[in-house]
Amino acid sequence: MKALVYNGSRDVSVKEVPDARLERPTDALVRITTTNICGSDLHMYEGRTDLEPGKILGHENLGVVTEVGSGVERIQVGDRVCLPFNIGCGFCRNCESGMPSYCLTANPDPDMAGAAYGFAGMGPFSGGQAEYLRVPFADFNCLRLPEDAEEKEDDYVMVADIFPTGWHATRLAGLKPGESCVVYGAGPVGLMAAYSALLQGASQVMVVDRHPDRLRLVERMGAIPIDDSKGDPVEQVLNLTDGRRADCGCECVGYQAHDHLGTEHPEMTMNDLVQSVKFTGGIGVVGIFLPSDPGAPDEMSRNGRLPFEMGTFWFQGQRIGTGQAPVKVYNRQLRDMIHRDRAKPSFIVSHDLPLDQAPEAYEHFDNREDGWTKVVLKPARS
Amino acid sequence: MKALVYNGSRDVSVKEVPDARLERPTDALVRITTTNICGSDLHMYEGRTDLEPGKILGHENLGVVTEVGSGVERIQVGDRVCLPFNIGCGFCRNCESGMPSYCLTANPDPDMAGAAYGFAGMGPFSGGQAEYLRVPFADFNCLRLPEDAEEKEDDYVMVADIFPTGWHATRLAGLKPGESCVVYGAGPVGLMAAYSALLQGASQVMVVDRHPDRLRLVERMGAIPIDDSKGDPVEQVLNLTDGRRADCGCECVGYQAHDHLGTEHPEMTMNDLVQSVKFTGGIGVVGIFLPSDPGAPDEMSRNGRLPFEMGTFWFQGQRIGTGQAPVKVYNRQLRDMIHRDRAKPSFIVSHDLPLDQAPEAYEHFDNREDGWTKVVLKPARS
Amino acid sequence: MKALVYNGSRDVSVKEVPDARLERPTDALVRITTTNICGSDLHMYEGRTDLEPGKILGHENLGVVTEVGSGVERIQVGDRVCLPFNIGCGFCRNCESGMPSYCLTANPDPDMAGAAYGFAGMGPFSGGQAEYLRVPFADFNCLRLPEDAEEKEDDYVMVADIFPTGWHATRLAGLKPGESCVVYGAGPVGLMAAYSALLQGASQVMVVDRHPDRLRLVERMGAIPIDDSKGDPVEQVLNLTDGRRADCGCECVGYQAHDHLGTEHPEMTMNDLVQSVKFTGGIGVVGIFLPSDPGAPDEMSRNGRLPFEMGTFWFQGQRIGTGQAPVKVYNRQLRDMIHRDRAKPSFIVSHDLPLDQAPEAYEHFDNREDGWTKVVLKPARS
Amino acid sequence: MKALVYNGSRDVSVKEVPDARLERPTDALVRITTTNICGSDLHMYEGRTDLEPGKILGHENLGVVTEVGSGVERIQVGDRVCLPFNIGCGFCRNCESGMPSYCLTANPDPDMAGAAYGFAGMGPFSGGQAEYLRVPFADFNCLRLPEDAEEKEDDYVMVADIFPTGWHATRLAGLKPGESCVVYGAGPVGLMAAYSALLQGASQVMVVDRHPDRLRLVERMGAIPIDDSKGDPVEQVLNLTDGRRADCGCECVGYQAHDHLGTEHPEMTMNDLVQSVKFTGGIGVVGIFLPSDPGAPDEMSRNGRLPFEMGTFWFQGQRIGTGQAPVKVYNRQLRDMIHRDRAKPSFIVSHDLPLDQAPEAYEHFDNREDGWTKVVLKPARS
Repeated sequence: MKALVYNGSRDVSVKEVPDARLERPTDALVRITTTNICGSDLHMYEGRTDLEPGKILGHENLGVVTEVGSGVERIQVGDRVCLPFNIGCGFCRNCESGMPSYCLTANPDPDMAGAAYGFAGMGPFSGGQAEYLRVPFADFNCLRLPEDAEEKEDDYVMVADIFPTGWHATRLAGLKPGESCVVYGAGPVGLMAAYSALLQGASQVMVVDRHPDRLRLVERMGAIPIDDSKGDPVEQVLNLTDGRRADCGCECVGYQAHDHLGTEHPEMTMNDLVQSVKFTGGIGVVGIFLPSDPGAPDEMSRNGRLPFEMGTFWFQGQRIGTGQAPVKVYNRQLRDMIHRDRAKPSFIVSHDLPLDQAPEAYEHFDNREDGWTKVVLKPARS
Repeated sequence: MKALVYNGSRDVSVKEVPDARLERPTDALVRITTTNICGSDLHMYEGRTDLEPGKILGHENLGVVTEVGSGVERIQVGDRVCLPFNIGCGFCRNCESGMPSYCLTANPDPDMAGAAYGFAGMGPFSGGQAEYLRVPFADFNCLRLPEDAEEKEDDYVMVADIFPTGWHATRLAGLKPGESCVVYGAGPVGLMAAYSALLQGASQVMVVDRHPDRLRLVERMGAIPIDDSKGDPVEQVLNLTDGRRADCGCECVGYQAHDHLGTEHPEMTMNDLVQSVKFTGGIGVVGIFLPSDPGAPDEMSRNGRLPFEMGTFWFQGQRIGTGQAPVKVYNRQLRDMIHRDRAKPSFIVSHDLPLDQAPEAYEHFDNREDGWTKVVLKPARS
Repeated sequence: MKALVYNGSRDVSVKEVPDARLERPTDALVRITTTNICGSDLHMYEGRTDLEPGKILGHENLGVVTEVGSGVERIQVGDRVCLPFNIGCGFCRNCESGMPSYCLTANPDPDMAGAAYGFAGMGPFSGGQAEYLRVPFADFNCLRLPEDAEEKEDDYVMVADIFPTGWHATRLAGLKPGESCVVYGAGPVGLMAAYSALLQGASQVMVVDRHPDRLRLVERMGAIPIDDSKGDPVEQVLNLTDGRRADCGCECVGYQAHDHLGTEHPEMTMNDLVQSVKFTGGIGVVGIFLPSDPGAPDEMSRNGRLPFEMGTFWFQGQRIGTGQAPVKVYNRQLRDMIHRDRAKPSFIVSHDLPLDQAPEAYEHFDNREDGWTKVVLKPARS
Repeated sequence: MKALVYNGSRDVSVKEVPDARLERPTDALVRITTTNICGSDLHMYEGRTDLEPGKILGHENLGVVTEVGSGVERIQVGDRVCLPFNIGCGFCRNCESGMPSYCLTANPDPDMAGAAYGFAGMGPFSGGQAEYLRVPFADFNCLRLPEDAEEKEDDYVMVADIFPTGWHATRLAGLKPGESCVVYGAGPVGLMAAYSALLQGASQVMVVDRHPDRLRLVERMGAIPIDDSKGDPVEQVLNLTDGRRADCGCECVGYQAHDHLGTEHPEMTMNDLVQSVKFTGGIGVVGIFLPSDPGAPDEMSRNGRLPFEMGTFWFQGQRIGTGQAPVKVYNRQLRDMIHRDRAKPSFIVSHDLPLDQAPEAYEHFDNREDGWTKVVLKPARS
């Protein structure tokens, strides 16, 4: 089959690889019809992680079931399914507690929790930027889609990762209807966090970024764009809230945060959030931070330690929740919102391309070129 | 009246001061019968804060109402009452949300949330290490005690601060019955956190400290003492939990954390907690951290920034909750547990002294002398 | 001052009565500018309760503060405020637990919990269908409105009762975003419940009624009208949900439920809800049921007992939450949604009348005449 | 193999039956070492349900895994496991929402939710009062026990049903630490509800029953026995709470509730609970109620309708939660409490018998003979 393979830093190509196939009785095989390039793919693309060459990328996947193992009960050949980027077993302590993103079974490393398709450090699972994908624990990991699935494929595919991840940011932040929320980062996840906040009845949603194409999408959805190249974002939040600051906030940037001149400050968004959110407010962090980052700008952050505003954070009685989103907690609900036309997350898609064009797409997206807000790949399209 | 007054760094004395009196129609006047010295009094005693000389200390107060204003409806002269250390109004946005510890009314500084008796930066309110105390918003702030109040006064006085503060640490940590919990710090608040965890059905409670008197109390209540002068506490937690680490943890030390040789490392307990708690676990922080600390060991921490393990914290999908405890959220319940003989927090009291001996008690307690675990003062005792 | 006074069954009139005035230091006096007629006013109007003649009706009130007592701290003369229909003290066990609708202080009857303006059995408080209203515990009970208050007065007045009451129905039902919800009753409260469900991200909201004017409003807001004069509403819910039934439901009718022929069956909506909601689903009941109802159709229901489907309810593992809405839990959030143009509940208003026309308005509204969906009164209008 | 088989009303016998065996790749086979007789077995034993003759009874099961299917990943031969009485799949909407007691997969009846071993109407699954048991979805349904499993087998077996069911009653009731709780029924489930309330820090737990052996167990665990043959239980609750009533309550009797003279009143405990619990209080119902009960005393209750105090229930703003306990939500935590010696539920066991004596045990237990509080069977004992 054809697949997008990682060869090394900023080098990916579409190659013929051995076909994906069933390995256990609880597996399913899925022919991928839509798969996205995610911002976290770029961390790997840039060689910032220890991803092994030869790995197939792609963790935002949707397709049609072509084969199921003898232990699969619910999912059937022909089902159109959306696959959460994190792979859970459904029966470990964490899966049962509603945290399949920290599954204790799927990842063979006993010191790790959590597995994912095509991800550095998240187990031996191939990604879905390919013609076929093996799905472990298929009954648990496949979300069956309704009859409008083909027509809304670019909406439903967002339920694999970024829509629930953005939604999760707002839940970690403890957003309540009627409240205000500030989101740092208007990449695909930040846009979905803002969109989720609006869908939940937030009264005022502010999004900090500097790229005009993203800020236009912020405005189009009914949120308030804050351009941090035009001035301190904390000051802008204070002005927009009559000095009261936001009720809660979301971090959707992660450890590669940098100022508008391009200099990295991995602690920047976290400390700005502490200052942008009110006393007693919550902060949800879905941007990725890592225990070690050899490419970081200084010794402390290379070891995963950041100069964090602990004093102000504590003094203000704030809360932080972090981590990979438990997609399955939200994906049925978000699917139903799309099905009933109450959500349409595909508004962020800028490019809808065949798999063969994935390498160029990675390059444009990684360069943060204007207009490349979100790339959707179609492996089944010739 | 007589009161314990702060004169300057490590200098307090009992003096005659003007009588406390009603200032507003919603005030009550309380004759103090029991008032404690708290670990946070020591921050001020040591001159580590900007407390103004002349301030009366004392925020863990219990006594008898002697006078009420014309706007007081519920509380009556003669009621024996326990007073939450934080002063709330009962009608601001934060009080109504169950966060009276961040009251927006009581503290006249518009940029601050939260007020307290006898506390640096927490409003103009005198403390209760005195014969009388003025209680603002008396109907909201007085907890009426039942008929066994005098007999159990050393228990009920713990409901003013340290019992609910310890309890709050476990709630911020998200402890569930049957889970394991590690508490850093076996001072009065840490002991109450461990005791609260046991009362809520924790299956395994571990407490890290190094003082033999405190570790004996840990053991006596049924928790597991961990002596960090005998080896890395994180390793000890791993050993006690078969490598699984604690389900959740509590920080009950704060910014003056130091190793067993006495060197301050303000980030030490926070980073040890991140390592001691499982993936997806919660951490409750009731130890105090400050936006600025002129006495800190280095430039970064003087500005309230600590080298925090953000990478590992995020990677593990953990949560942190912080801040001053909303005493009123818990004080009725804890009072009822004491009343029904299901809790007896006075087991930590080592000294029961008249007010006149407060200066020596501060000195002994501040020196962390063996056997001085908790001091209770009796201003009404001649 | 002028006020709408209850004289007896179906007999109300606007009369001169003694001026409202401050009675306690914590009171405020409010000049009423907008006050609504509520469906629960009709229970009293019809003589179905034991309301004493001479009582001033009206519990959905908004106006301008003209005087405050000496113990009032926050609210000032000139503030435009919206008043929750239930009167809380802010410091009793229930008010502190977020249930001011069951305040233990305001109602002088020691066996009762809860007080309200102009309501049978809810304390000695006059209603606000008058020129002035005395507001007890003013700091707790007044919701201050922003600068657009006058312009949006017909929206903000809904925050006194029906908008939070409808919202509360969905919270009692446990609605989550993306779920489906069925609402029984499209009176003002039912309409607000459906509107609240949509604002919270429900994917499918169905509303059962039979009056064309109400069903038109259901459709206009984006919900699905179910006409129960056209067929069994339970069957219609089954059809609309592919046999899966609704995820949760709201009861917004109460003890005077009747079939489309007008025969009362007080248990009808409750039992239909049990059948319309899925296994494990929740049911929120804000329609009123009473311990005794002398006007009920049979002996059992006269004594407040209804033939309830306990067997099916239990078998399906469902939940019921009931009672008067704790308006203050929601009113800040809903105010902010109106202020930021994210909610506009005045869409249900059919009539905007001076106080003098209140008696005719009661008559039309009680007759359920077509087009009389919600009446707003303007006492300040000559 | 040998098994306890239902032959008809009040007729069970131990017979040779075909061996249990694996049927699907995700099954496990368990050799039963301990299995209990449950109060709900008596409903079936008495012929009150439509249980088909030939069915093997027994849903409180513990044993050793002897064989696993090819799709089983986690559970291994030799594991000692405790089996939740309800059978879940782990991947349906309800299992994923923490409600495996309403699994949509395991029960082949499409109109039903929930399956169980040896239960009328809960699917085609044999019970475990036998030498071997087939366990579907073994990875999801087996709770692995620690190294002290054999020694504490009579404690761990309670985690299959009655301990989590009693615990669930308190969670449905919304019990908070420090609160008071009244439990109706001191059968095994009621005793476990009371015990659970104490373990969670309830300040006062009252249990209503009339059998001296059960009331002695109530007292022994530290709860307050209320003998309803000595007077109205509601009055007794009022007296014990200074007229304030209980903060919450648990129903642990179900549809066969009867007065102390033996006359059935299926609505009795529910209506007493409404009167025994405070305004705003919660009621958890784990006693069984059925949509139809041909043996009920009157027409209305034969159809599953009970004359319920809806008026008082609503007026008091109370909540009811119902249904079969989701054992898996609690079983890890309760196992850990037993393992750490913080819970010892076997204190209720009165008889520990070989399987052969099961028929007599059913008879004694069904007769409610003094001293027969809980029967544990040992199929592996010769």
